[in-house]
Amino acid sequence: MINVLFSARPALWDEYAAPLQDAFAQAGLTVSLSREHAPEDVDYIVFAPNGPVKDFTPYARTRLVMGLWAGVETIVGNKTLTQPLARMVDPALTQGMVEWVVGHTLRHHLGMDAHIAGQDGVWRNTVYPPLAQDRSVTVLGLGALGAACGSALAQLGFAVTGWSRSPKQIAGLRCLSGDDGLSRALDGAEIVILLLPLTPKTENTLDAARLALLAPGAYVLNPGRGGLIDDDALIAALASGHVAGATLDTFRTEPLPADHPYWAHPAVVVTPHIASTTRAASASQVIAENVRRVEAGDAPLNLVDRAAGY
Amino acid sequence: MINVLFSARPALWDEYAAPLQDAFAQAGLTVSLSREHAPEDVDYIVFAPNGPVKDFTPYARTRLVMGLWAGVETIVGNKTLTQPLARMVDPALTQGMVEWVVGHTLRHHLGMDAHIAGQDGVWRNTVYPPLAQDRSVTVLGLGALGAACGSALAQLGFAVTGWSRSPKQIAGLRCLSGDDGLSRALDGAEIVILLLPLTPKTENTLDAARLALLAPGAYVLNPGRGGLIDDDALIAALASGHVAGATLDTFRTEPLPADHPYWAHPAVVVTPHIASTTRAASASQVIAENVRRVEAGDAPLNLVDRAAGY
Repeated sequence: MINVLFSARPALWDEYAAPLQDAFAQAGLTVSLSREHAPEDVDYIVFAPNGPVKDFTPYARTRLVMGLWAGVETIVGNKTLTQPLARMVDPALTQGMVEWVVGHTLRHHLGMDAHIAGQDGVWRNTVYPPLAQDRSVTVLGLGALGAACGSALAQLGFAVTGWSRSPKQIAGLRCLSGDDGLSRALDGAEIVILLLPLTPKTENTLDAARLALLAPGAYVLNPGRGGLIDDDALIAALASGHVAGATLDTFRTEPLPADHPYWAHPAVVVTPHIASTTRAASASQVIAENVRRVEAGDAPLNLVDRAAGY
Repeated sequence: MINVLFSARPALWDEYAAPLQDAFAQAGLTVSLSREHAPEDVDYIVFAPNGPVKDFTPYARTRLVMGLWAGVETIVGNKTLTQPLARMVDPALTQGMVEWVVGHTLRHHLGMDAHIAGQDGVWRNTVYPPLAQDRSVTVLGLGALGAACGSALAQLGFAVTGWSRSPKQIAGLRCLSGDDGLSRALDGAEIVILLLPLTPKTENTLDAARLALLAPGAYVLNPGRGGLIDDDALIAALASGHVAGATLDTFRTEPLPADHPYWAHPAVVVTPHIASTTRAASASQVIAENVRRVEAGDAPLNLVDRAAGY
């Protein structure tokens, strides 16, 4: 019998209990899944930051902590967490992110908002957008999400540059890395998509100096983490017109306060952290697979590098 | 020397003259391109319906008439046109159409309009759309445009059904054909995209009976031809809520009159026939290739079947 502790808020228990039981059974694992195992009996923890477990010290025999979310910036700083930590890389979350990113990239590329707003009977048929091949899109972050989004955009024909801290190669993308590569990736970019993890090194990646590198009239999409953008710098770039618009899904404070200038800005669309979400059915399969791997003596998937912070 | 007559409005001459000259030269053809060849000297005609040639009778030695647009419904009825007629199948027009169709499909799929309109400071993060795999999209018409759009949507994960009058097979799509297939293709479809040619047989394809087959809350996209839809039936389906929204790019009368109910309807977005356009650089290459083929004794590309009307 393998004891798995579920530590997340009650609504998630309602959502995950049955899919997790199914996934464990399908993986051939005999699991006792509960929210009430005694700490010393726990083999694995399914974890979200808003659950009851804050101090991992008593979980002496726990072999793996499995986060439910892709981002772990609120967990890695927990000094009591000495057990291995896995992030969630959920294929359904990746797919949802691809749909949001491709959709909003095309929305800006095609200038949809002007048509949606321009239902006044005036036939404005003189301007065509460039084809995707003539639109430079830069994706910052080439983890599971950034790589999938960059590939989907390249497949549609966009001229895509991807950037990651360490070198990567992804078919169809111009891949750059390192500090110098970041400047080159942003230089002249017309649409920038932020899909970096939030770490001390990535905070304020899009600051005033880097925003100035973008093509005049560029668009910024942030489905990643609010802290990746220097908000004052973005608001200034929107005010000057250097950045023509932004679609922002993540913020330093969520829910975004009702009096935040992003809500009222005519060139900013706020979406309420709905770009994508972990889905219980597929995430449960990832969790069961990780338990199966550790039980079989294999390395777990999606281990967090605690020094790097993601 | 090959004499090519350019018969279209003057603005198109300004756009096409240089790219056509370049394309003929690249194809190794010695061409005299002009708007003023005597009819009896003309070998080929580059043609748009709004140009000066209305009567093809005097063009006795003309070997091929090459339309500049994908749709030929205003040309095929011309009884004086006995010469072979080629439609334009421009890779750039196809690509632009893919971008418009994928963009607006994702816009409806993701419910973007509600977010764009909902910038009031209220954090509405409870509803996620289904993943594309759980969204049924039906593309009517599997010519160059419909096939490319259907494939791109399938590549993004959508559950795509394609329909054409005669049977076709396209990888990744459920392909149906014939009258019975049309009913099955529309049955329960959540997003319908019209990319059929306009012929007497396709007029009013989307009438009241066929709209009733769609899933409740479906969306209709028409980048094809205005006459494919029974406008009164669509307005009734929008009024009842059975169709939740429509994005329409083509109309029976263009420009769409300012007092047409589509402009004012809150669930309809009118775009002014800008879904895609023929682009001179790539279209000129298609034209040069067709001249090269006929000069070499090969069959031209994209010949119109005069009986079928496309």
